[in-house]
Amino acid sequence: MTVINDGGITSPKGFKAAGVHAGLKKVKKDMAMVVSDVLAVSAAAFTTNKVKAAPVIWDMDILRKGKAQAIVVNSGNANACTGEKGLADAEETALYCAGKLGIDENAVFVSSTGVIGVPLDMSKIKSGIDALVPSLSYDDKNAAEAILTTDTFRKEVAVTVDIGGVAVTIGGMAKGSGMIHPNMATMLSYITTDAAIEQSALQNLMGNTVEDTFNMISVDGDTSTNDSVIVLANGMAGNAMMTEGSVPEAFEEAFRFVLGELAKDIVKDGEGAGRFIEMNVAGALTKKDAKTLARSVISSSLVKAAFFGADANWGRILCAMGYSGADFEPSLVDLSFSSPAGELCVVKSGEPIAFDEDKAKKILSEKEVSVLADCHQGDASATAWGCDLTYDYVKINGDYRS
Amino acid sequence: MTVINDGGITSPKGFKAAGVHAGLKKVKKDMAMVVSDVLAVSAAAFTTNKVKAAPVIWDMDILRKGKAQAIVVNSGNANACTGEKGLADAEETALYCAGKLGIDENAVFVSSTGVIGVPLDMSKIKSGIDALVPSLSYDDKNAAEAILTTDTFRKEVAVTVDIGGVAVTIGGMAKGSGMIHPNMATMLSYITTDAAIEQSALQNLMGNTVEDTFNMISVDGDTSTNDSVIVLANGMAGNAMMTEGSVPEAFEEAFRFVLGELAKDIVKDGEGAGRFIEMNVAGALTKKDAKTLARSVISSSLVKAAFFGADANWGRILCAMGYSGADFEPSLVDLSFSSPAGELCVVKSGEPIAFDEDKAKKILSEKEVSVLADCHQGDASATAWGCDLTYDYVKINGDYRS
Repeated sequence: MTVINDGGITSPKGFKAAGVHAGLKKVKKDMAMVVSDVLAVSAAAFTTNKVKAAPVIWDMDILRKGKAQAIVVNSGNANACTGEKGLADAEETALYCAGKLGIDENAVFVSSTGVIGVPLDMSKIKSGIDALVPSLSYDDKNAAEAILTTDTFRKEVAVTVDIGGVAVTIGGMAKGSGMIHPNMATMLSYITTDAAIEQSALQNLMGNTVEDTFNMISVDGDTSTNDSVIVLANGMAGNAMMTEGSVPEAFEEAFRFVLGELAKDIVKDGEGAGRFIEMNVAGALTKKDAKTLARSVISSSLVKAAFFGADANWGRILCAMGYSGADFEPSLVDLSFSSPAGELCVVKSGEPIAFDEDKAKKILSEKEVSVLADCHQGDASATAWGCDLTYDYVKINGDYRS
Repeated sequence: MTVINDGGITSPKGFKAAGVHAGLKKVKKDMAMVVSDVLAVSAAAFTTNKVKAAPVIWDMDILRKGKAQAIVVNSGNANACTGEKGLADAEETALYCAGKLGIDENAVFVSSTGVIGVPLDMSKIKSGIDALVPSLSYDDKNAAEAILTTDTFRKEVAVTVDIGGVAVTIGGMAKGSGMIHPNMATMLSYITTDAAIEQSALQNLMGNTVEDTFNMISVDGDTSTNDSVIVLANGMAGNAMMTEGSVPEAFEEAFRFVLGELAKDIVKDGEGAGRFIEMNVAGALTKKDAKTLARSVISSSLVKAAFFGADANWGRILCAMGYSGADFEPSLVDLSFSSPAGELCVVKSGEPIAFDEDKAKKILSEKEVSVLADCHQGDASATAWGCDLTYDYVKINGDYRS
């Protein structure tokens, strides 16, 4: 597997993209489009929130068809809590886009992120699509910019991997937890690949990989109305068709790498985040227990606040493991912190061991810190990624609209 | 039911209490004792955390005996993650206390709150008990002070209620979410009553009432290693014995009032809390759905941050209901805010309605704000209580030990 320098959503063969300013936001780019030269196999995962935005409802229908060719995204307005008009607007967006591209109207995914409860300005959406189509490029950086909200950096990645002698490319872009009133942290992610892969194999791979990547991050524990991961695989690399049970491990690894990098970028760019936390659980009884334990720790407000203070507060970590609901024996747990500044064991068999406070402070003051909890019970492991809880988080999310 | 002015843990007949400074904390009172003149029926609920402090493990044994006569509490040290020595210390505390009081050694509950992972200083615990016993008083305010950690006010309440012509009294005291490094928000609550009631009836009543009170509050969603609610009923009021199925509604109401007031006081005194939020859910399909919805809203960091900013962010509330896992139909929900400054409906049938922003700001700027979500599906309802997420929360929990 090779990471493509400055690669992204248009790195795989036969994918064009564009990003423009359509006027939904004041100044910044606010509409993006991704188009495959040919109809592509699709897979997707959507928010589990009961309150689903209109475009998510539209996309769930498109996913059932198993193939798609384009994705059109707007930021600035989430088209959520917008009733019948919202659903009609999402459909109209897809149809207008399909017409302009000259493709099947059932081949267009639609995503929105931004303000909730405000109807889409369809004239702006249409003029945005009018501007996007002629801007489509096989080497695009604008789409990944146009999907951002309050993100502070563009999130894009691409890799090539050898599949039976054929170079296959996977690219991706994402937006993280931006906040535009009255909205919540929406996560959008788009993956393109020129791999030839059957739909069921792709959906399966995506489902499992999302479990280990996007579902293992937490900025503030809230799940939005618009969260979406959409994958298009157009087969243009020319590899032998991958089917369920025959997906090479190298492809799975590359796929997991792309989704993992995007997931970690989202956490690193979490609202107000100052410190990136990697929580590793080892020696757990089951994979499910390991994941539950890791996720509980990075989701704890008390743990997150301790990391803000670079405080070696192992008690809060053990406590968050304890209330996670996962099966483990507290008296067997070893706990250690590590970062580029060193490594330090603080708990052995569930009890604290004396440690050098200055060394702990030094390790925890780094931008990226890892925690390892070894449960010494089985051989299951999991990793979750989170960020600290800062004054800025409260400021970004608490300040009244101005 | 009559609320006793300045009443508390010693308001019921035959209960003495005391609070002293034993040296576990630098200056403040740090040990408390509650003693019944006679052996009392006991009921209790303890933390569901897998990591249980030593005194909790001791108390679970005492609870099985069904009767107890005294409770001894220390703040400043949680006796958690302290291994075999911790268990021996909890037992020794109970035995020493029983000896000094001349009561059965299996009749003493022990509670601790404070630093985790540090062994108890048993010489201080013993001299604390030595000082507590002669200070015991039928009119005590010191015990409720000695159990506090970073709480900013004493939490005590008592009521009398007529049960078949006999005045029965229920009193209680609690400590909320204090933070002493390296610790987490521990909730301790003690209830005394002179009611005559069978153990199974008391345990049942307590379990149900805790569900509607202490389990419906959230400061930061973390469940500590030491959380405990302990009830002693000594029968000295002389009412006819209440048995399972024959507990008068008036008694249940009074009991719920006492636990509810303590629970609300804990939230009002939550770390850094500036605003008290009451979340009411009505018209839900089941009581369980109503509770899950209400709890999800007051636990959401995004909702809590919005209340800090006095922001009428109905989208975040609807979103938190959506990911709660409860069954409801978003398109039927009505949402309104109210406070002493007025009332305002912001969502009707799942869609926003235009509202006066200035009025909203005025309503939400009050110290106590209520939200009502009517699901219009059934007749189940529930209420949860929470607080806003503030800079001070991050400061209290994030600042490095100094």
